[in-house]
Order: sequence, then C-alpha cells, then structure tokens
Amino acid sequence: MTEATRGVTSPEHSRDSRADKLAGLLAERELDSLLVTNLVNVRYLTGFTGTNGACVITAEERLFLTDFRYVQRAEQEVQGFERLTAGRDLLGDIAARLRGRAGFDDAHVTVRVHGKLAEKAAEKVELVAAGGLVEQLRAVKDAGELRLMGEAAHIADGVYERLRERGLAGRTELEVARELERELRERADGPSFPVIVAAGENGALPHATPRDVEIPRGTLVVVDMGAQLDGYCSDCTRTFATGPLDGRAAGVYELVRSAQEAGRAAVRGGADCAAVDRVARERIEAAGHGERFGHGLGHGVGLEVHEEPRLTKSAEGRLQPGNTLTVEPGVYLPGEFGVRIEDLVAVGDDGCEILTGVSKELVSVD
Amino acid sequence: MTEATRGVTSPEHSRDSRADKLAGLLAERELDSLLVTNLVNVRYLTGFTGTNGACVITAEERLFLTDFRYVQRAEQEVQGFERLTAGRDLLGDIAARLRGRAGFDDAHVTVRVHGKLAEKAAEKVELVAAGGLVEQLRAVKDAGELRLMGEAAHIADGVYERLRERGLAGRTELEVARELERELRERADGPSFPVIVAAGENGALPHATPRDVEIPRGTLVVVDMGAQLDGYCSDCTRTFATGPLDGRAAGVYELVRSAQEAGRAAVRGGADCAAVDRVARERIEAAGHGERFGHGLGHGVGLEVHEEPRLTKSAEGRLQPGNTLTVEPGVYLPGEFGVRIEDLVAVGDDGCEILTGVSKELVSVD
Repeated sequence: MTEATRGVTSPEHSRDSRADKLAGLLAERELDSLLVTNLVNVRYLTGFTGTNGACVITAEERLFLTDFRYVQRAEQEVQGFERLTAGRDLLGDIAARLRGRAGFDDAHVTVRVHGKLAEKAAEKVELVAAGGLVEQLRAVKDAGELRLMGEAAHIADGVYERLRERGLAGRTELEVARELERELRERADGPSFPVIVAAGENGALPHATPRDVEIPRGTLVVVDMGAQLDGYCSDCTRTFATGPLDGRAAGVYELVRSAQEAGRAAVRGGADCAAVDRVARERIEAAGHGERFGHGLGHGVGLEVHEEPRLTKSAEGRLQPGNTLTVEPGVYLPGEFGVRIEDLVAVGDDGCEILTGVSKELVSVD
Repeated sequence: MTEATRGVTSPEHSRDSRADKLAGLLAERELDSLLVTNLVNVRYLTGFTGTNGACVITAEERLFLTDFRYVQRAEQEVQGFERLTAGRDLLGDIAARLRGRAGFDDAHVTVRVHGKLAEKAAEKVELVAAGGLVEQLRAVKDAGELRLMGEAAHIADGVYERLRERGLAGRTELEVARELERELRERADGPSFPVIVAAGENGALPHATPRDVEIPRGTLVVVDMGAQLDGYCSDCTRTFATGPLDGRAAGVYELVRSAQEAGRAAVRGGADCAAVDRVARERIEAAGHGERFGHGLGHGVGLEVHEEPRLTKSAEGRLQPGNTLTVEPGVYLPGEFGVRIEDLVAVGDDGCEILTGVSKELVSVD
C-alpha cells in the first residue's frame, strides 16, 4: 500500500455550527487562530475521513488542508471550508495561515512538529497550547450523533442476542471473540475495539486478551464489545454464567449489578463526575472489594471509544445533557474470576437514557 | 470497555541484543539515558503488547514501566528488563528515572508530555530530542523477523490465489474487499491495513476506498492488501484485468510492470535510496506519465506497514542488507484507471529476495 490508508464516509452533520461554536471558544481564550491536527477532530469539524488533513479556524476563516492524494475525497466530503492542497507534511502551508495568538493541540502536536511550526510561522505568530477545545464540543452530542450511537448500541444488542443463541461453554474464547467480530462486521462497520471474551481467571484481568482456551461450565465469562457505525462507537460489557455458580461468584455479580444501577441512577445533567463514580464505588467498598475495582466508573464514547467526559475518583467537572458515556463498575478477583457490567447511556436533564438494551440479570449461556 | 485495549502475543526475539545495540547508539549520541515511548518501539525492544508501557535505557539499566492493568501481561512478555509498576500516565515515574542528557522521541512525545517531563525531572536532567534511534535498528531485520515477514507475504499470496478463483467482475468492490479481509483473518492475524479494491476510475486514486459499486468487465482493478502475523506486516498490490483491455490500458500496465522490475533490480545493499526511486521513475517519465506517479517508489515494512527506509525522490541514505521494503510504482489517470504493482522484498548484499510470490503478468480475473 502507498503511504496513507482509507476511512469510511461519515454522514453530514451540522458542521457549520460546529466550526462556529469553535470560533466562539477561540474568542473566550483570546486566540486569533486555532490549528486542528487530530484527525478525529478534523473529521468532527469537516466530515473528512482521509488520513492527512488539518484545519485552521479564525473568526472569519474556515480553512481545510490536505495533500494531493485526498483532493477528490475532500471535494466530496468537506463543505463550508476553503479547501487548500498542501505539501505532504502540511506544515509549511499551515504555518503560513496562522495568525496572532495561534492555538495548537498540545496533547496531539509533537515536539518535532511544534519546532517546525515555530520555525516556519511569521515572527509575530505566538503558538499557544490550547488542547481540548474540539473535545469539549465533541462531548455534547447532537441529535444526529445520538441517533447513530443508539443504532450502534442496538446492533451490538443483536450480536449479544446471537451470542446467547450460540452459547459459550465448550467453545474457545478466541473462537467466540472472532465470531462476534464477524457479526459486528456484517451488521455494522465492524467492532469499535477488539472484542474481549474472558472466562474464569482471565476475566479477572480488566484488559484480557481472548485465549485459545475452552470456556468451562460453571464459570463467569466477561464479554466486552461495541459496534462502529459511520465513525461512531458503542460499548457494552456483560458477564455471563455458564451454568450454576457458587454463592461467592453469584454474590459478586449481584454486588456489581447493584453498583452499576446505583451509578447509572446518579447520571444526570449537572451531576458531579467524581460524585457519580463515588456512588458506585462506595457500594463496592462497603462489600470489602474496593481494592478490586481498579478503574474508573465510566468514560465518554463517540467518534472515539474513550473520550470526554470521564467518571473517575479524580474527575473534575459536571455531566451535561448530550454527553454519552459508559457506566461500568467491575470487581476483579485475581486467579478466580471477574465481573464487569457496562451500559452506554445518554445524559438528559433529569436522568439518562440507556442506549444498551441487553438484560443485566445474571443469564446462564451454556 | 475499560480504558485500554489488547494486543497479540509476539514471538521471542533477541531482545537483549536489541537493547544492547540501542545502548551503543546512546553512547554515539552522547546520551546518558533514552526514553522510549512509541509502543511499537517498546514492543520491538521488550515484546510487550499492551497499550501502556515505556522503557528507559541507560548504559547499565534496562527499565520497563507499565501500569497496574498490565502487570501480569508484562510478567509473561517482558524479560531482561527491570519491570516497574507506575501510575497510569507513567510520567512521574519515568521522569524520576531519567539521567543526565536524556534522549526522548521528539517525533512521538507531545508538547504537553514534554512539558510535564521537564517539570517533573530532576534539575540536572537535560531533555534532548533523539527520535529515530529505535527505528534505525528496526529497519534491519533479523532472521526471525525475516521468517515472519516471509510467512505473512506467503499467506497474502494464498489469498490472492483465492481471489483469482472467486473472480472480480460482477461483484462489488466492497464485497471483494470484505471477503479478502475475512480470508486474512482466517489465515493470519488479519489484514495489515484496510484492503483496497478499486476498479476503473476508482483505481486512479492512490488511496481509494472500496465502493458499493459493481466491478465491470474490461477494466483494470487495483487490489492492495497484506497480512499481519505476530505483529509483522506484509504488503502487496496487483492490478488485474476483468477481460480484454484496450491498448492504452494494456500499455500502461506494461509500463508500470517494467518500471517495477527496473526498480526492483536496483535494490541491493549499499544502493542509494533516491537513486532506486529514480530508476523506476525515469521509465515512467520517459513514457510521458511522470506527473501521474505522485508517490514514492516504496517504503520499509515491518512491525509497521510504513517504516524506514523510504524510496522517494528526496530520500537520503542507502539500503542495508536486512531492510524489507516495497517496490510499488503506479500510474494514475484521473477519471480513467490506475495501475500499481507492488512487491515486498528483502535486501541482500548483491540484490534482493522477493518475498511476494504472486505473478506480475497481466492476469484476467473474470
């Protein structure tokens, strides 16, 4: 393959108002221009799905730059922006377009690229670290995005349904994971991340890799998957039993389920992110498993499977209506088993809508 | 999914000598320590396949850092390094281990991370831009790597064989591309990049996306794919006919084929990279299509599908025995069709071994 790869076509959104909102944030930060280089952010603003593109936004200007390889694609995908064809590294052409206090994404721009920009930009241009502005917009979904994420979640529901029909015990983790990925490719644009199927002690790893190992009866199996649709992701975890469980495993399942429900019930517009995490975490701590829940309660989902906002102990800020995020407590007992239960939810004014439709009752999939 | 994803297990290589060689490069650059953050480089040095890890190398020390989620995986995968469990962002723990003139990968480390490292490191630590050192080692493959890449190429050959049996005309580009990706998943760890199938005018885009459009008879179809195996990539393009072609299309095919052969014949240890590009490019220019060959002749392939060395007009440096790279001239006639022919080759002292086994004769796949 020549250097660069393809993407999928994204639906038309209200891109003008996205760029306009961003221009509004520039004014708040006293920036004269903003360079957008992270391709997910470029896609969000412009619809561009190629692998080399950037935007420069000022109060008046909406510039999109790509190289010769993507000129035709940009003509199809990018509207409402002045389209410029730049050299492969884009840098010289970008530098020439920066103005005054020029914001750049310090969480994305490398030290090398920053050095080249500083060298090539006019002397009166001041490069200012300004990461997170587009992410701030992306965190609040519009109606079209909510519809796509709901569809992606619904497709994953169907794949879970299919899993229950096909069964778990006696098949290998890898075999099941590959089948689920195949289903997600047939029903959507594919999995939003590599599918996790982890039985028994493998489920005690929060980031287990499916093994070429047969799933036994009488154990817990963590399954974590999502669908990707027009760039948007869904994300859902369920933990299944393969036949009757001992009391300890069933007890941990019920604990996680009640913590998940408590966390979910705390999700609403205006809720403090750390407080939502705490609601679920306190249940698990009260049962003596606080040390066994080593990750955050949830994370935003959208064009990326992990984005803003975050539900963690140290999270700052509050939820806003239009956020889409996971609620996914887990308890991991090393050498024994793990339980994680995860819904994808959309935040509203007074609560949240659960986009995931799979039951959270303990289900035996034999 | 909780935050982080999985990787695949890599085979054991001579990792000690890789870290030793790297320590040798440090001495040449007068560096007291080197921070390795790019996960592909971390995998190359340590075998680690998780999504959060870093190394610090000094003359005496081999440190590997990851967070709590990957402790068990690191125990299995990472040998010959002191393994440290660090906070999720690794940064504070990394900063504490840097010594004297501390190299970092300026092409990978972001401005934000650099700022945090500078803030947290001891006052006498001097951060020095030192990207490309591990890439320099990676460009020369050892026997185990060459074996894996040969296997990956051989698997893709088999998938091309299967494509010829199944046919092209009357099926959609998307349908064919998905089938090829499915085959690559069954026979290897999957495609090394999204498969390109591009008929007629779509083939005139060097980075075409397969369309939901039926492939007609009597046209040219560019197919570009590779297999991934234990982290290593293969990469092969062939252009097929779907039935008899007009003289112009057949002529362009023969031109590209002769340019590919000329370029390939120029590949040997010690050859100047820009000169190898020129050999193929001059053929295409002589035929009046110089403007229609808008990319480099080839690129290195290994753990990444695009890595060092590069065969381009402006490339510097010479090929070394053990480099594995593509030779892939193309001619793209907008609105009409494109032809690209690409082999993966391994550089030897006096020539190169072609790892790709698919015929380069014009083949009609109906």
